[in-house]
Amino acid sequence: MTDNMDEEADSYFECTDSERAAFELGIKLGALFHQFIGAPVSEKNIDILKEAMEKTTERQAFVKKATVQIVPRGLEGRKNSAFYDYTTLSGDMLEAAVEVEYKGIKAKGRLKYIEELDYPLMYIEYIE
Amino acid sequence: MTDNMDEEADSYFECTDSERAAFELGIKLGALFHQFIGAPVSEKNIDILKEAMEKTTERQAFVKKATVQIVPRGLEGRKNSAFYDYTTLSGDMLEAAVEVEYKGIKAKGRLKYIEELDYPLMYIEYIE
Amino acid sequence: MTDNMDEEADSYFECTDSERAAFELGIKLGALFHQFIGAPVSEKNIDILKEAMEKTTERQAFVKKATVQIVPRGLEGRKNSAFYDYTTLSGDMLEAAVEVEYKGIKAKGRLKYIEELDYPLMYIEYIE
Amino acid sequence: MTDNMDEEADSYFECTDSERAAFELGIKLGALFHQFIGAPVSEKNIDILKEAMEKTTERQAFVKKATVQIVPRGLEGRKNSAFYDYTTLSGDMLEAAVEVEYKGIKAKGRLKYIEELDYPLMYIEYIE
Repeated sequence: MTDNMDEEADSYFECTDSERAAFELGIKLGALFHQFIGAPVSEKNIDILKEAMEKTTERQAFVKKATVQIVPRGLEGRKNSAFYDYTTLSGDMLEAAVEVEYKGIKAKGRLKYIEELDYPLMYIEYIE
Repeated sequence: MTDNMDEEADSYFECTDSERAAFELGIKLGALFHQFIGAPVSEKNIDILKEAMEKTTERQAFVKKATVQIVPRGLEGRKNSAFYDYTTLSGDMLEAAVEVEYKGIKAKGRLKYIEELDYPLMYIEYIE
Repeated sequence: MTDNMDEEADSYFECTDSERAAFELGIKLGALFHQFIGAPVSEKNIDILKEAMEKTTERQAFVKKATVQIVPRGLEGRKNSAFYDYTTLSGDMLEAAVEVEYKGIKAKGRLKYIEELDYPLMYIEYIE
Repeated sequence: MTDNMDEEADSYFECTDSERAAFELGIKLGALFHQFIGAPVSEKNIDILKEAMEKTTERQAFVKKATVQIVPRGLEGRKNSAFYDYTTLSGDMLEAAVEVEYKGIKAKGRLKYIEELDYPLMYIEYIE
């Protein structure tokens, strides 16, 4: 490994700093969704799963902060089950915000389930 | 949903109670591995990731207890990177034990990277 | 790696051959679900995704055959979108059957979304 | 769902078109990696897995083309195993290129394992 890993990585990119910030934001939101969708979830493990998703995202390159909310759906009907009282994490239960900074450019993106679209949209809130 | 979800689920199975316990153990280990492999990991988020993996496994049907150890590899060379100082969770970093109980049958399984096999083996430690 | 990898792996197990078959079945169904849930899916890539899930499962230890059906839901409302005309694979779209054989014991398991349970149940169809 | 899903989605974004293209590229590469890492792989299912990864990526918003190469590692020592002759997909086995187009802006990104970095780098090859 080189002494100067960060510069070496940068040398592969052909884009502006703000495009880079947008790209890094996209990676993190795509990763968050596809890594954790499908995880078993109930009232009892929401907090720890949420925190793991945040801390896992914050470990990645250029991330300043990540926040996650999980609102489980479909658990009501399961309360009389001793064993199947959980569901699996899906896009409509999940909301996340990620902030990155690359060479002074700050950008914030969001993953949010948009009801009118019936779609967990990932979008850029700002780049500045 | 039926009033009696657990009985209804049982009605689909054609096997003995100990085979059922073994099957449930297999599901949990297969799920644990394939849900979390690929997650970003560094010294800073190991504890929370480990706990999320445990609590996520413990939510599932018939699990009594789950314990996970993560020993990250390949982080040494990354210490001089400000941004890429993490790796992704792989089978050789992971050890897990899961205990299930089904109708009084107790079973314990394990996921362990076996060096001589170069393979993250899932196996049954006991069924009793 | 040892010359005799399969025997070495077997030496870790403390269970009967039919419990082993049940365990292997559970692993494969747990893996299938948690590896692929969340994958983008539309009419245009169902066939290839289904085949990849089958062939990926059939690669694993002791699997004789795997069959997968995917019935996408929620695509109707998306037909007027040029870009968002797909959804993500969830448990209620998926049905799978896996057959394993271990030392002459044959076992078949299934993953099926059970409407009355609102749950993608994994169960054992037979062990013989 | 609205009649005009694509415009509605666009209304959430606060960025330039080329930042949007970069963001979409990042999402797709992050998704590709975290969805499929961990999948069982051997010489026998590489082709189908590769094709599923490509077609799954091409289903997503604004993607024009996706190409994937998989070079499995660590299979040599497994050839004498009847059952464990496969491995799991990891970042150092994978190379991918994704092309997106958003409102006439074309961008290409790549996922490539960089040996000197010991890291599966995702980067932007061009935006134009």
